[in-house]
Amino acid sequence: MSDSASTLDRFSCPVPLAPKSQIVLGHGSGGKLSAELIRDVFLPAFANPVLGRLEDQATLEIGNSRIAFTTDSFVVNPLFFPGGDIGSLAVHGTVNDLAMGGAKPLFLSAAFILEEGLPAETLSRVVQSMSRAAHAAGVQIVTGDTKVVERGKGDGMFINTTGIGLVPGVLNLSAANARPGDCVILSGFIGDHGIAIMAQREGLEFEVTLESDSAALHTLVDAMIEVTPEIRCLRDPTRGGVSSSLNEIAAQSGVSIQVRESDIPIRDEVRGACEMLGLDPLYVANEGKLLAIVPPRHAAAVVDAMRRHPLGAGAGIIGTVSEGRAGLVTMKTAFGTTRIIDMLAGDQLPRIC
Amino acid sequence: MSDSASTLDRFSCPVPLAPKSQIVLGHGSGGKLSAELIRDVFLPAFANPVLGRLEDQATLEIGNSRIAFTTDSFVVNPLFFPGGDIGSLAVHGTVNDLAMGGAKPLFLSAAFILEEGLPAETLSRVVQSMSRAAHAAGVQIVTGDTKVVERGKGDGMFINTTGIGLVPGVLNLSAANARPGDCVILSGFIGDHGIAIMAQREGLEFEVTLESDSAALHTLVDAMIEVTPEIRCLRDPTRGGVSSSLNEIAAQSGVSIQVRESDIPIRDEVRGACEMLGLDPLYVANEGKLLAIVPPRHAAAVVDAMRRHPLGAGAGIIGTVSEGRAGLVTMKTAFGTTRIIDMLAGDQLPRIC
Repeated sequence: MSDSASTLDRFSCPVPLAPKSQIVLGHGSGGKLSAELIRDVFLPAFANPVLGRLEDQATLEIGNSRIAFTTDSFVVNPLFFPGGDIGSLAVHGTVNDLAMGGAKPLFLSAAFILEEGLPAETLSRVVQSMSRAAHAAGVQIVTGDTKVVERGKGDGMFINTTGIGLVPGVLNLSAANARPGDCVILSGFIGDHGIAIMAQREGLEFEVTLESDSAALHTLVDAMIEVTPEIRCLRDPTRGGVSSSLNEIAAQSGVSIQVRESDIPIRDEVRGACEMLGLDPLYVANEGKLLAIVPPRHAAAVVDAMRRHPLGAGAGIIGTVSEGRAGLVTMKTAFGTTRIIDMLAGDQLPRIC
Repeated sequence: MSDSASTLDRFSCPVPLAPKSQIVLGHGSGGKLSAELIRDVFLPAFANPVLGRLEDQATLEIGNSRIAFTTDSFVVNPLFFPGGDIGSLAVHGTVNDLAMGGAKPLFLSAAFILEEGLPAETLSRVVQSMSRAAHAAGVQIVTGDTKVVERGKGDGMFINTTGIGLVPGVLNLSAANARPGDCVILSGFIGDHGIAIMAQREGLEFEVTLESDSAALHTLVDAMIEVTPEIRCLRDPTRGGVSSSLNEIAAQSGVSIQVRESDIPIRDEVRGACEMLGLDPLYVANEGKLLAIVPPRHAAAVVDAMRRHPLGAGAGIIGTVSEGRAGLVTMKTAFGTTRIIDMLAGDQLPRIC
């Protein structure tokens, strides 16, 4: 426990990126190294109050409208995997970042960096998939860009999607809003996306093909907000997994979070693959799940509404927020012990999105 | 002439991308192959009226506001060059795409794809440069993303910037708006950016270091719009150069455009380098120049206003719009002959932005 505690201390006491250091895969993991890059390089340079809020999306006042604005580049490898591909993922990922701000997703941009030699048919398949995903999510892809790099200077295809949504006036969702006593809700099975990708890469076989959970979550969010606009915070636990999202919320809200292992749903295949690969499912990426922090008086009704939605069928309360030590996330294990759940350090699963 | 004419015909009579074909560098050139990719792959899949307008930015009605929205990925090689770097370029490029829609640039997203092993100091320098460029242009970088790919799967650093701006109600700028009789205005010397990059790559030396013209053009646009909101169209001739922008305007407006070689300003160093490298300056990228189509009664006043702005000191009228054949661009050469100026075919200068 002392190790984890000292890591937390290091995280809250900034040490700038060493000047001679190099970028490593972990800087793209969504965990501790990503957070350091944001804190040491991006925030000081781009200093402004909107970016400083560290949400998954910026909320901007333009004219009389509250606009949500978010960007993501996708470098997933392989390009096609059970349950999706880089194209559908690029649509879902950005739609979800808008939805986590409570925004109605409206418009996406799509920018492609293609490697010379990519089969045109591969591009066409991906673009068709983006089109279907955008149509299903009710968003329009309204502007785009294509660049091509020489063979060996890219990896088939990278896609950036940037999204715009409209935020209803009544909402105030923020990772800084969690309050002691609040309930932590999770929408369903964790780890499906990361393990589906990993299985594809490593040639693992399951009795039933494990599929990515990649999906657009905005209608699930609508159903939740219909119950109460007083939801404190929504996060989709993608890179860095559930653990990193909970750590971000705990740190930004200055609270402690406790979860119960027995209440976190994990498929047997995912659990088995994690054991075999030495991964912790709490750190594995999801692309169709959300975490919600909800005042206790609304929690049961929100869970009920989620369970009536196909993407929230496995929803449940997995823990609570308490005063405790700011930024500390702990888990009551199945054995009855308590362990600290730290942010992902390093990178256990590169290029998962 | 018959060759060029038949090429034009081919362009207006779509032949889908061959199913077994591969992506080549020319698909990222901003010329004919880029246009084919848009026409054959992106437009059919993402079909919607906004994208179908083929402007450098989408104009969206959100709430009571008219929002301009544009995306660009930057893969320039080398990352640092005389007059700028990938960071300043990424800010200027997206600010300019907003400005060409008459929008006041407000907010940018910044998404990085980093190659494992990139020195942290290189990232810091680029981010500082982005910060300075954004500050100078009066825009805020409000949301971002970082991905890391394995060594050999990228090339140091790629950056996507996506921008949001506010479009004043009085403006209606579009490449489809050029009318016979209109004047074609160019803001200054062409080819500086492309040749500065090329010289850096090839180790060419000039008596005076040739610098990229990379700059944010929105205040120049403000000065022009102050003269008259009746400007028909603005384009910044980046990839594909002046020739490709003029071809797009001529095609989308269903008009013909004639320019005069003697009125197009080209620095001696750029002309010399182009001769040495076998390049045509009309196809070389600019990152701080604009083309404007303006009704004749306002043209002189617009040019006067441009010349009073530091980024428009070399502005002048370089040609006219006529009924002629739709999509045809011709140039009266210094020798008194007339030649067809087609879109860029293939890719003479890869990874220029």
